[in-house]
Amino acid sequence: MFELTRLTTAAADFTQRLDQLLAWESVADARVQQVVDTIIADVRCNGDVALCDYTARFDGWTPENAAALELPQSRWTAALAAIPADQRTALETAAARIRAYAEHQRLASWAYTDTDGTLLGQQVTPLDRVGLYVPGGKAAYPSSVLMNAIPAKVAGVAELIMVVPTPNGEVNSLVLAAAAIAGIDRAFAIGGAQAIAALAYGTERVPAVDKIVGPGNSYVATAKRAVFGQVGIDMIAGPSEILIICDGQTNPDWIAMDLFSQAEHDEDAQALLIAWDDNYLDQVAASIERLLPQMERRSIIEPALQRRGGFILARDLDEAISIANHIAAEHLELSVDNPQAVAARIRHAGAIFMGRHTPEALGDYCAGANHVLPTSRTARFSSPLGVYDFQKRSSLIMASPNSAAQLAPIASVLARGEGLTAHAQSAEYRG
Amino acid sequence: MFELTRLTTAAADFTQRLDQLLAWESVADARVQQVVDTIIADVRCNGDVALCDYTARFDGWTPENAAALELPQSRWTAALAAIPADQRTALETAAARIRAYAEHQRLASWAYTDTDGTLLGQQVTPLDRVGLYVPGGKAAYPSSVLMNAIPAKVAGVAELIMVVPTPNGEVNSLVLAAAAIAGIDRAFAIGGAQAIAALAYGTERVPAVDKIVGPGNSYVATAKRAVFGQVGIDMIAGPSEILIICDGQTNPDWIAMDLFSQAEHDEDAQALLIAWDDNYLDQVAASIERLLPQMERRSIIEPALQRRGGFILARDLDEAISIANHIAAEHLELSVDNPQAVAARIRHAGAIFMGRHTPEALGDYCAGANHVLPTSRTARFSSPLGVYDFQKRSSLIMASPNSAAQLAPIASVLARGEGLTAHAQSAEYRG
Repeated sequence: MFELTRLTTAAADFTQRLDQLLAWESVADARVQQVVDTIIADVRCNGDVALCDYTARFDGWTPENAAALELPQSRWTAALAAIPADQRTALETAAARIRAYAEHQRLASWAYTDTDGTLLGQQVTPLDRVGLYVPGGKAAYPSSVLMNAIPAKVAGVAELIMVVPTPNGEVNSLVLAAAAIAGIDRAFAIGGAQAIAALAYGTERVPAVDKIVGPGNSYVATAKRAVFGQVGIDMIAGPSEILIICDGQTNPDWIAMDLFSQAEHDEDAQALLIAWDDNYLDQVAASIERLLPQMERRSIIEPALQRRGGFILARDLDEAISIANHIAAEHLELSVDNPQAVAARIRHAGAIFMGRHTPEALGDYCAGANHVLPTSRTARFSSPLGVYDFQKRSSLIMASPNSAAQLAPIASVLARGEGLTAHAQSAEYRG
Repeated sequence: MFELTRLTTAAADFTQRLDQLLAWESVADARVQQVVDTIIADVRCNGDVALCDYTARFDGWTPENAAALELPQSRWTAALAAIPADQRTALETAAARIRAYAEHQRLASWAYTDTDGTLLGQQVTPLDRVGLYVPGGKAAYPSSVLMNAIPAKVAGVAELIMVVPTPNGEVNSLVLAAAAIAGIDRAFAIGGAQAIAALAYGTERVPAVDKIVGPGNSYVATAKRAVFGQVGIDMIAGPSEILIICDGQTNPDWIAMDLFSQAEHDEDAQALLIAWDDNYLDQVAASIERLLPQMERRSIIEPALQRRGGFILARDLDEAISIANHIAAEHLELSVDNPQAVAARIRHAGAIFMGRHTPEALGDYCAGANHVLPTSRTARFSSPLGVYDFQKRSSLIMASPNSAAQLAPIASVLARGEGLTAHAQSAEYRG
């Protein structure tokens, strides 16, 4: 019989065993690092020639010239026109919902004038140009194109550049259709560390961007880390995770399927369930046992659940909440009565799915909130991808002659206390 | 005669020469990295014993026991009571202004229910516990304690832990007084990579935090990079910079002193002036020539100006603005008529100081906006330190049975398009 790890909070070593189950250290691979460093140096030095070369070597097709690296807009328009109507409608509906949610996140500039007459404020501006990495091949997710691109466009980013590898010259038509719907400005058929280098430093053909977002394999992630500082990057994501808190009143088949939906991503994905009724955990275990053999992606789900899945038996809801705050899960389902009251007590989670009718899968695709979320307990200090990731703030300060006279003596005393006398004199001139 | 680099936009190689002047690559030092890795591993393994050991080795005093690493609150209170009245008033006034500005930044949670009945929102929560690194010795800046600590407390961070090395057991009393005013919760007399390791992983005595902020030397910066992911970190700052746009109507002595105030930080600091009147640049050069010999920190100011300082002669204000947007300076002074109209055209800058009566020094100490700002052109994609760095957001999603029935078919089509059939079935159960 298939057996998930079971932990009980009553055990003396519970916290230790939980932390072992959660543990994830992304191993920095020295060989990958070396390859990536070489590729970045090559692209910085040789530009488009290097891009064509790596594309021939890694993607299995040889661009005729640098112009052939660009996917013209006509390709996306054609892809959008060619996909089945139900897929087009689904993409468009999801895009509209993601856009509506993003509109709520947009920050506005503000300013105030204090009683002395000093104007203080914050001017909010979009990034000029953003690069979006989209993986090619089997892990090509059109939903990720929507989730990464739409907040950038809502922020007002003037130019959004997509890069997507096209193994053997083939490009996923759903990805292109999603790019058309999301409002991508230009697209290039490049991938891997070479695409990240091109976006960070620019080539003759590929314009340099200010920030790079989007998921990728270990070469892409290592390259993003390497160019950070030259450009901004989003998070380097760890494996995906779900934590479900259930009061035992939800159909156990539903919970089993929610756990599967996480586990089917890859063998490192983590699916956890907390309940305070041992009998309910048995029911979910029975559902897993029965449903697993029917799952198309069983060969991924089963090892994922075996390696990193788990059932946690808590004393009660209060203890379940406390454990959820420790875990700080990427996805947290509250499959309970009155989920809003429980959500208000959650301090750390990427996204909170409330109630029995809100499986993570709805949020992954079309509820509207972003599916790019902090993993590996980083929800303790970071947030979902959003419009704010594509806006930045400049402080605004304007003293009047009167307020400068008020502020100068204070600045002078503090500057002299720090031994910075040019600062002091600069202030005193206006005093 | 003292000569600054002069560039003119009329020169064919202007952009190239400007980029050479701006260029700054922080060199990753392999030896520092190795030392830091060893220290982090040691602190993770040996906790307080390692902290006492490194303190004895690097800071020149031997803690009697682990308890001696903590600076009790009575020390800060005593320091605050002991400093001169004008310094105390200046610190308290600055703190009140920094707090007032920060209050404007606090994000609030929001939620809305769409026409289908799906609730969507964003729950904003503070970080639980934050570590603040404060350098010891000569670069001990009480103003930095205020600038880093106050936004965290305004955000609602429950526990703020300060670490500060105390070379030979000596601690800067202004730093302790600032800690008392800023509302630090606990403080430890530790520094270097060992302090960063202790904050990231915790020891018996030092609690593990969720994010580490504050400036430090190359060991501290390298350690922060190494623990990123385990905890959040603020930016790794490059050398400080100022860019002044002046219409030639400001007293040239004032502009010279503003350039000095940047250059006195360290020899890598960058001070640039753009004008469109060659004669005015000559006047500022004459002011520099005359004032420089009187400056206490001449030995730092002079090499900084010589190595990385510069005058830029533009054609007009429009071109000056365009150059400023390319440079994306940490500090931008607009010493011009109608500075607000100019500020509205600035897309990239850390902080904008508007008008002839607003030198950077006022903002560094007491205007209210934060002095922790993006350097080295990173204002293209990042923002001043603020309350938002100590808050995070969890997405909220709650479908009703009705809205789940609307959303499920969309999610199902998209999930099947991506080959994720457990996602599809999880959605369909609620359809």
